[in-house]
This record gives sequence, structure tokens and C-alpha cells, in this order.
Amino acid sequence: MSLNEPASPRVTLRRGTARGHYDDDTIRSILAAGLVAHVGVATDEGPVVLPMAYGITDELMYLHGAVGNALLRGGAGTEICATVTLIDGLVMARSALHNSMNYRSVVVRGVATRVDDAAQHLHALEVITDHVVANWADKRPVTDAEAARTMVLALPLAEASAKVRAGDPVDEPEDLDGPYWSGTVPIVARFGTPSPAADLRSPVAVPPALEELGRRE
Amino acid sequence: MSLNEPASPRVTLRRGTARGHYDDDTIRSILAAGLVAHVGVATDEGPVVLPMAYGITDELMYLHGAVGNALLRGGAGTEICATVTLIDGLVMARSALHNSMNYRSVVVRGVATRVDDAAQHLHALEVITDHVVANWADKRPVTDAEAARTMVLALPLAEASAKVRAGDPVDEPEDLDGPYWSGTVPIVARFGTPSPAADLRSPVAVPPALEELGRRE
Repeated sequence: MSLNEPASPRVTLRRGTARGHYDDDTIRSILAAGLVAHVGVATDEGPVVLPMAYGITDELMYLHGAVGNALLRGGAGTEICATVTLIDGLVMARSALHNSMNYRSVVVRGVATRVDDAAQHLHALEVITDHVVANWADKRPVTDAEAARTMVLALPLAEASAKVRAGDPVDEPEDLDGPYWSGTVPIVARFGTPSPAADLRSPVAVPPALEELGRRE
Repeated sequence: MSLNEPASPRVTLRRGTARGHYDDDTIRSILAAGLVAHVGVATDEGPVVLPMAYGITDELMYLHGAVGNALLRGGAGTEICATVTLIDGLVMARSALHNSMNYRSVVVRGVATRVDDAAQHLHALEVITDHVVANWADKRPVTDAEAARTMVLALPLAEASAKVRAGDPVDEPEDLDGPYWSGTVPIVARFGTPSPAADLRSPVAVPPALEELGRRE
């Protein structure tokens, strides 16, 4: 999946095809920058979409939750869809229907499987924990009982596509001389200063990885 | 739906029930603050989830796109799910499985219907255009041909639920005296300075509503 070719028809963009990307670098950079995936699972009463933390390896997206989590239980062994979206700005055109947003999104489709192997399960929890910022090694280790209460799903990244919009509005040629403003408004998300919990008893320093979050571009 | 009671079992939170909110004010304030909804639609090959701009009225969420848009066509007349999520921060606990995020999310489930009435269709386009910032009135009016190329779906807000997490990590009592940091890292999204399009020919002032975005909390 290193070439810029779709892996399957169902992840091939049908609209805005010039904004489609199928190469590994684009897909992985968006997945690496995202905080949550919106995960869609079919139910008898229609689809359900919930935001979930995630982590990625070379081949897989991992999702986790309590073993009683209905979305995860419903998604195990079936087709699901996980979508990650980063919004970079508002695109304000001269006419309303050319308004848009600048964004980077990835859609992953595939059959999710429950991870039962103990070593892979623990590795998945580490990957999810370290997704936004590496912090697994700073913590009290996960116990067997905690791991047993936690379900992990693995979704292959083999069928994924990215869609990226950047830059100025695309207006109608006849509108260019009109008295209407056109341009973009950036949206920037930043991490703030880490704030200690009220129940932090002993003087524990903020882990360096968290301190550094505020300096991220 | 002004009481804090779920509208139906299928939008009743099954996990983290203390974080569930069913009152109109909470649901509407989250929908008002969101930029995109992640919309899930069932297909023969499993669910698809795509990010979409939206707008809301007292009763409805409106979605729009080209009349050829497969997601909208697939969603018309069927059960869909639209989820809006705002991420407010990282929750970094003393143990990995108590890590979380602070967030506000709304899940709306229901049958989406295609809007065919011309007046409602145009109003829906205005509502979607003005969702993040009022700018409909600043633009060249939408033409009949543009409107005819644009499909609008209406999703009732009657079956919606919110889930909100805020505040410190919730650690195990036996971890409180451990040598592990615990706390939160806020995430703040801000609008930047409007940037004129390269093809802006005449000197058109930035609309005041866009100038004010950068001062929004």
C-alpha cells in the first residue's frame, strides 16, 4: 500500500477524487496526528458511530474498551469503519456552496477481530496508550486483572484512503470580480500546560513527554 | 426533550452512565460548538463513516452535499447516526487503563429524509452555511442551479444523547501514594487570522464575523 493507488473499489474516492490519497505516508501521518477515531458499527437499528481512542502499528489500528462495551462486542468479527479527521481551517468562498473546510481525513474499512493472544493484547494496550504521547513507561504497570477486563479489537489498515483539502476557496470564475471576500481562516489546536490532579499527594514531576506537548507544532 | 431523560433505549448510555446527558441545553450546546459531524450510513459492505459539515434547527440536523454524493443517497430514508465530538484534553492517570480524554460528544440516531421543499431546502443551506459563523448574508446568493445540484438531508434531533467527561483522572485508591504523576493536559482549538485568497482582486474587507472568530473563547 505504498503506491498512490486505492486498495479496493470501496475505499476509492467517488467525489473530489483529486483530493484522494492512497499512499502509506499520507495515511499514516494523518492517523499519527489524530486523537480519536469515529468508529461505525452496524446494528439491527442502524449504524452507531462513537469516538474512540486508538493506536496504530504498521498493519493495524487497535481499539479498546471494557469487555462489556457494546460497540466493540458488536464490531468484533464484522465489517466496521474507523474515520479520523483533522480540521485545519474554514474555507470561506464568495458563494455559500463553495464554502468548505480544509481538513485531512482517513477512512479505514475492514473486518475487526478481537485480540485474544496475551502478548499482542498487552502490546496493543501499550500502542494505544502511547498513541498521542509516549506515557506507558511512566505508569504503574497494567495488571492481569485490568487486562482481562479490557477488550481489544484489531482493524487491518490494508483498506484505507485519505482525503485532504488545503488552500484557498475555489470560486466560480464569474464571481471573482464581485464584491465578496474570499479566503481561509486557520484553526489551530494546541496542548496547554499539564495540570496536576487534586489528589496528587507526593511531589511527582510532570513527565517530560507531557511537558513537551505544549511545544508541539 | 428538555428533561434529563433519554428519548429511547437505543440512545441511553450503557457505560459511563454518570456521564450521560439527555437535556436539550447540553445536547444543543455541543452541537452548536462542533465543526463537523461524523455520519455513519449502512451499506452492503458494512458501515461507512464520513465527516460532514452540518447545521441545526430546534428540531433537525441538516447535512448537505452533491446530489451524486453516495453517503447522502444511501442515507436518505434510512437509519443513520451522526456524532459530534469535541476533545478538551488528555487525562493522564497513574495507570494506563485509567488514561482517558476529556470530551463532549453527542450521538444522534434516526431516519434521515431528503428535503425536497424548495423553501426548506434553501433555509437548510443557510443554516448549514451559518453554523460555525454567520456568513450567508455576506455572499453572492445561491442560484437555483446550484441549489438543484445540492442534496439536503434532515435528521431529527429527537433521539440524541450527550456524553461529557471533565476533570481529573480517576485512579485506583492503592495507586494514590505511588510515584506516578496524574493530571490533565488541556487541548485548546483557536481560530487564526483570516487569510485572503490569492485571487481576491478588489480590496474587499474581511467580514466582521470572520474577524471576530479569532477572539472566540
